[in-house]
Amino acid sequence: MRDPLRFWFDFSSPYSYIANEWVDAVAARHGRTVQRHAVLLGATFQAAELKPPTAFPMKGPYSLRDFARSARFAGVPYTPPPVFPVPTQNAARVFWWLHDTQGVDAAARWATAGLRAMFVRAVPLHEPAALKGLAAEEGLDADAAEAAWNDPVWKMRLKQANDEAIAAGVFGAPFFIVDGEPFWGNDRRPQIERWLESGPF
Amino acid sequence: MRDPLRFWFDFSSPYSYIANEWVDAVAARHGRTVQRHAVLLGATFQAAELKPPTAFPMKGPYSLRDFARSARFAGVPYTPPPVFPVPTQNAARVFWWLHDTQGVDAAARWATAGLRAMFVRAVPLHEPAALKGLAAEEGLDADAAEAAWNDPVWKMRLKQANDEAIAAGVFGAPFFIVDGEPFWGNDRRPQIERWLESGPF
Repeated sequence: MRDPLRFWFDFSSPYSYIANEWVDAVAARHGRTVQRHAVLLGATFQAAELKPPTAFPMKGPYSLRDFARSARFAGVPYTPPPVFPVPTQNAARVFWWLHDTQGVDAAARWATAGLRAMFVRAVPLHEPAALKGLAAEEGLDADAAEAAWNDPVWKMRLKQANDEAIAAGVFGAPFFIVDGEPFWGNDRRPQIERWLESGPF
Repeated sequence: MRDPLRFWFDFSSPYSYIANEWVDAVAARHGRTVQRHAVLLGATFQAAELKPPTAFPMKGPYSLRDFARSARFAGVPYTPPPVFPVPTQNAARVFWWLHDTQGVDAAARWATAGLRAMFVRAVPLHEPAALKGLAAEEGLDADAAEAAWNDPVWKMRLKQANDEAIAAGVFGAPFFIVDGEPFWGNDRRPQIERWLESGPF
């Protein structure tokens, strides 16, 4: 088995949602696994002095249109979130809690459940009740999930993940590193596929 | 013949150079022509409160790497410009001078010549001598080209092009509008191809 494909995402990122839908199949087709990293774009944006695309005149309305069109292009359902962006630190802390206590597969299932809840069903993941509801739907102990996101241990674990991402050069999401090569954006899928198919180009 | 594909570019934009290499063939394959618009990203960035990707920590070094990799991915030669970005208003004024006095084909040839000079041969297009040299190479009257870029008429024509671009929602380059649908970036090529192939999606 070759090196895993490393994939950074934020639960509030529409392009991360789209990428999360194809990344496992693309990696598997080329004998790779996916190593997911939940991060907060707020942290990477601060390090890179960036803002969300929707924060700008002209680029903002275009981005909202492109989110939906890019989802249709990828063939995945998409519902524009009623509030955007929303703070997703609690969902991300649950990711790392699952990652470290139940393993990468449990964390990956949570990533997919969270991103789909946000961008298909318009579930307000920043609201504790909605997040607990999602945890219960996913067969988790909702009270334990809430305890985890309030626990300094998992707060620190997320901060560590943000710091590691920044150290690795991650300034946005989705962000991928394959064999040391960085790829930013859902729209780098064709380049990633070529890299996985035939190596460096 | 269906509506032309409208294509905005800046002579200092590496992704515009790459897009300029494929846009005519892609359009022609679907019975379209290309309507080029030379603009200054400085003007659209100001309107949209944006900066070049290379102006940011982390995103800057990634962008330089991605410029070159995206060119290799597209199969076009690329030489990183020694100075980046450079002011390209003179090259853009020559574009509009040719456009309005010799027609769209002459302007398109100049666009391609200028973008290739910048990104394949590292010609410093912001230097008048280099720009006159390029004009001569292209069979133009170099003194007339210089007179044009110093002429208030062509200065105003470029300003008008910038204003029209901003009014059309153009905030970066390359930027495309097909049947009223906006696409930003060289990496929207697959979406543009699908649109041209089978219409709105």
